Amino acid sequence: MLDLEPFEKLDRVIHERGRLVIMSLLATTERLTFTELRETLGLTDGNLSVHLRKLEAHGYLVVDKQFVDRKPRSEYALTPEGRAAFADYIQALEVIVRQAQPDGEQASTLPAGGRLKPGLAGAG
Amino acid sequence: MLDLEPFEKLDRVIHERGRLVIMSLLATTERLTFTELRETLGLTDGNLSVHLRKLEAHGYLVVDKQFVDRKPRSEYALTPEGRAAFADYIQALEVIVRQAQPDGEQASTLPAGGRLKPGLAGAG
Repeated sequence: MLDLEPFEKLDRVIHERGRLVIMSLLATTERLTFTELRETLGLTDGNLSVHLRKLEAHGYLVVDKQFVDRKPRSEYALTPEGRAAFADYIQALEVIVRQAQPDGEQASTLPAGGRLKPGLAGAG
Repeated sequence: MLDLEPFEKLDRVIHERGRLVIMSLLATTERLTFTELRETLGLTDGNLSVHLRKLEAHGYLVVDKQFVDRKPRSEYALTPEGRAAFADYIQALEVIVRQAQPDGEQASTLPAGGRLKPGLAGAG
């Protein structure tokens, strides 16, 4: 039977592809400057800024703005909440992957009684 | 070093959460009627229709419309292209999950020379 719960758990703030890669980078690299993120991801300034602000608004990252050699530098790092949310997200993905694999815990018939919470009904 | 390629490979048609769960269900259950999908997912008719049409427009699923006991019935099934795209998507997810895990093949420093293709720059 396909377990629908991991799909409900997919945090939309993280699920968006651009933000997923930002979260993945910060989860493995501790701190990155705006310039490092932009050059690594190949995103425009505007697009990257919007993603970073959204992640900051959700408390998933913090920015540290300083002047280094008279030039402004913004450094981004995940918060403990951001790390926890990312870990939960990855855990949900892991179950989704496992269920999708031929030898996984998957259904050969219609999942019985599985019904998503209203949260997923808003899927745009 | 964080491999950015699997993020580029995340098919946006499948990545949207509502469509991901539809693809996952159809990948494991072969054929489902509109009513079965709607009741399982708890989506509105409109929302489900939009997702199904988008998946059909990309050639990922086919619909078989018949009258059964004088009532119209629409049955949905993945195409071979849909199965292949879903398999590729799941494979990309698997690498993303593996890289995110503490014992995975992940970076402790800034990924060198990793740069996403322009495709990701359009992340909204």
